[in-house]
Amino acid sequence: MNMPLSPLVGQVEAPPIAEAMSWVRPGARNREFLNLCQAVPSYPPAEALQDEFARLAKAPGTGGYTNIYGLEALRAAHAEAIGRDYQAEIPAANVAVTTGCNQAFAAAVMAVAKPGDSIVIPAPYYFNHQMWMTMLGIGIAPIPAFSAGRNHPIAEDAEAAITPATKAIVLCTPNNPTGAIYPPHVIKAFFDLAKRRGLALILDETYKDFRPDPAPAHGLFAEKGWQDTLIQLYSFSKVYALAGYRLGAMISGEALLFEAAKILDCMTICPPHITQGGVIYALSHLDAWKREKLALMAGRLAAIRTAFQNPALKFELVSSGAYFAYVKHPFAGEASKAVAMRLAQEHDVLCLPGSMFGPGQEDYLRFAFANVDGALMEPLAQRLIGAQ
Amino acid sequence: MNMPLSPLVGQVEAPPIAEAMSWVRPGARNREFLNLCQAVPSYPPAEALQDEFARLAKAPGTGGYTNIYGLEALRAAHAEAIGRDYQAEIPAANVAVTTGCNQAFAAAVMAVAKPGDSIVIPAPYYFNHQMWMTMLGIGIAPIPAFSAGRNHPIAEDAEAAITPATKAIVLCTPNNPTGAIYPPHVIKAFFDLAKRRGLALILDETYKDFRPDPAPAHGLFAEKGWQDTLIQLYSFSKVYALAGYRLGAMISGEALLFEAAKILDCMTICPPHITQGGVIYALSHLDAWKREKLALMAGRLAAIRTAFQNPALKFELVSSGAYFAYVKHPFAGEASKAVAMRLAQEHDVLCLPGSMFGPGQEDYLRFAFANVDGALMEPLAQRLIGAQ
Repeated sequence: MNMPLSPLVGQVEAPPIAEAMSWVRPGARNREFLNLCQAVPSYPPAEALQDEFARLAKAPGTGGYTNIYGLEALRAAHAEAIGRDYQAEIPAANVAVTTGCNQAFAAAVMAVAKPGDSIVIPAPYYFNHQMWMTMLGIGIAPIPAFSAGRNHPIAEDAEAAITPATKAIVLCTPNNPTGAIYPPHVIKAFFDLAKRRGLALILDETYKDFRPDPAPAHGLFAEKGWQDTLIQLYSFSKVYALAGYRLGAMISGEALLFEAAKILDCMTICPPHITQGGVIYALSHLDAWKREKLALMAGRLAAIRTAFQNPALKFELVSSGAYFAYVKHPFAGEASKAVAMRLAQEHDVLCLPGSMFGPGQEDYLRFAFANVDGALMEPLAQRLIGAQ
Repeated sequence: MNMPLSPLVGQVEAPPIAEAMSWVRPGARNREFLNLCQAVPSYPPAEALQDEFARLAKAPGTGGYTNIYGLEALRAAHAEAIGRDYQAEIPAANVAVTTGCNQAFAAAVMAVAKPGDSIVIPAPYYFNHQMWMTMLGIGIAPIPAFSAGRNHPIAEDAEAAITPATKAIVLCTPNNPTGAIYPPHVIKAFFDLAKRRGLALILDETYKDFRPDPAPAHGLFAEKGWQDTLIQLYSFSKVYALAGYRLGAMISGEALLFEAAKILDCMTICPPHITQGGVIYALSHLDAWKREKLALMAGRLAAIRTAFQNPALKFELVSSGAYFAYVKHPFAGEASKAVAMRLAQEHDVLCLPGSMFGPGQEDYLRFAFANVDGALMEPLAQRLIGAQ
């Protein structure tokens, strides 16, 4: 008899990026294939950082484990960097370095919720969030991520969705998939709600560096007792172009981190040592490089917004901001997956269908526009017009 | 109100290695501190492999993601290497590369069992196995890992422990913590049982390279339909001294891997890219280096066995083999943790107490002897005598 398979995992769809990649027909093209599917920087890590990785490869100790929470120097450097961004003092003891931000989310969810519990999350949501909670047997209570006249969720909707089984609220800002940057007062309202109701606020800020506004994204780290409510998540993959090196972080109270350590230990023991060393270097040496890349990203955002103003284009830019654009396609009634497959196979444009991001999203497509050169936004618009 | 914490995670003990490390008093010593606590190679990666990592750090693409299952070239190379060791043909499609072997185990368990299900495992067991299953809400049915006259578990015990909730049997051979190498016919009996009862056999072979016998460890990969029963796990950390680089693998049927991909995606998206590149190199260039290290390990095993023959030593070597020795301490009635703490604090010997490996283990200690030079086994015995 064959081995059994978990029905919890079985009910989850196959990983979306791998599926989308499978739509791409191999072979030569007479134009550039526009891959706007996975959020992955279009440039390599800084040359100085590549040199540092090469140095670390030959340094003593790089082959050994680190602490579960990561190197102390990295915990301190990340605490300082986030503290600087948010104008708050964050102790290094509140930082756990993780093997990418997906792992940080996975550990955060497991640490606060058990099978049968429930978590409130705005939909559309980042698909890995939904997949992980579903596989753990944790219920999902979706609330609208946007609505007429606003591109963000509201705490009132979350409050209405809370039941005795609720353990946490998940917010992702800047948002994946919509690109929306939630205003500080909105984030604060969710924090206040979570605190009042004794819930965790899991705040995924993977794309925070891509906010055009230099003011702090929120003031939560200055709130008294933030450690007892907030679990803030971050990724080093995007801004430093280190996706393949796998590094993220979570910041929360020590009680939460004590539990998370058990989970992180069982998943990966520690994050990759060489990556940790490289990111310590990046945090203290690459500010100028980072600013240059962020300017590039801002240019791409401006370019896609301009391109979508073309009156001939029937694809509507519903939301755009950091890294992503969320687009309403003109084929009302047609499944978003069919539209995305056609764009990939006939128009050399790969994006993800709204259906991958939750219920009620069949009219939408996600474009990870930050992947491609600003000069390609106009050709993108032309191809979409050609597809109408 | 503070955020909630999962009672499933809360009931799990803190990660053992971190706790054991905390027993070590800082400061100078007049003799070498013998760290026999975590299984971690005492030597760095091969110099040629360090060079390869340095080259990869500057190679295009290393900053990018790979497939969830890992680079195709690595899947093929690992399939070939394992196939060679086991005299069987293993398709690359049956390989998933993982971010260390703990992740492979974590994904294997989640893919076959849901909360409320149960898994049979010999005790003492590798603590991360117990921690992960407990945190998922999966029951553990322990069977004896050894008994008078034999240093391995028997399938009859496993059969008696099976209930309708059972989804898998876990075997770890060479065993952590006992070091025992299970005979092929024993492994085969567990496989036959799992197949007959429609269970998964999760076979953790992290330490397989440290077997002194060059004959295959088992013949399971030659069994018809092995893919429907077997999930074989492996780690690249030990033999190539790559613990900090985080790489492992699982080999199973495509149906299992299809489910595992969802889990791996949510945990880490992909294993570290640079590590994957390095291991491709290692698999095709480091056979001689590997043989040299294995000879070194064999020497350490011989040295600890000789050292424990000292008639003055009241610590008894109950089991030894690949990487680990399992030792009965002479303080009957005293908790193994108290004994281990005293050895660390008064005798500069760090090992792990049996209590960390399951119920009924208070009389035992685990020594990861492969961590230290063979010349130190005699001083180790002298310190233990001094502690009696």
